[in-house]
Amino acid sequence: MIGRLNHVAIAVPDLDAAAALYRDSLGADVTPAQILPAHGVRLVFVNLPNTKIELMEPLDESSPIASFLAKNPSGGIHHVCYEVDDILAARDHLTATGARVLGSGEPKTGAHGLPVLFLHPKDFNGTLIELEEAAS
Amino acid sequence: MIGRLNHVAIAVPDLDAAAALYRDSLGADVTPAQILPAHGVRLVFVNLPNTKIELMEPLDESSPIASFLAKNPSGGIHHVCYEVDDILAARDHLTATGARVLGSGEPKTGAHGLPVLFLHPKDFNGTLIELEEAAS
Repeated sequence: MIGRLNHVAIAVPDLDAAAALYRDSLGADVTPAQILPAHGVRLVFVNLPNTKIELMEPLDESSPIASFLAKNPSGGIHHVCYEVDDILAARDHLTATGARVLGSGEPKTGAHGLPVLFLHPKDFNGTLIELEEAAS
Repeated sequence: MIGRLNHVAIAVPDLDAAAALYRDSLGADVTPAQILPAHGVRLVFVNLPNTKIELMEPLDESSPIASFLAKNPSGGIHHVCYEVDDILAARDHLTATGARVLGSGEPKTGAHGLPVLFLHPKDFNGTLIELEEAAS
């Protein structure tokens, strides 16, 4: 069911410093920063040959990643995102196996403009998993 | 400098349960378990179309991931691994920019039989980064 690893998301306290680190120390291709008000984050993509890393900083205290950074002040890996062909079929299969979907259970529009859902980290060994319906 | 994302490693308290979860709930291709005594872990690979996830459980209390699981009893994302063409050149570039390499600074042989190094998570926003010299 799960397909490509779409991205790994890393929460950081200072996006510009983190972007410089990935560009200069790790020698990676880093995009300009974008603000996603609906997601409460400012982010850059680190483009790798086979997938990407998203570096995200909270826009304000109400950001979904603000509490994560309060617990992990220097940052950390926040979630992984897997692509699925059909997000509603994936959700129904997962809930039938006992896994919990966060929020209302209805997909929202993710950072790439595609339907996404998040799965409860307690059901997946402490890993927050995002599912994104692959672009057709 | 960094190339492909070789893998994301997730520490789990019960490998067989985690493997079943990725196989049955997430519908992924999961390999049989392997024991890597030199790394103190028993692991499976979750093969995705573009990269892989490693699920690892500690062999015993002296395992490098035992302390991580003591802090995160249900598990969690432990590290990400990027491929580099020349691990010594990568190390020298990174240390010149102020990043710290864990251990002696000399590459060891990783889970895939290739030279690896780990970078200090405090220098990379709380993210433990493994570098692996790509197979030529």
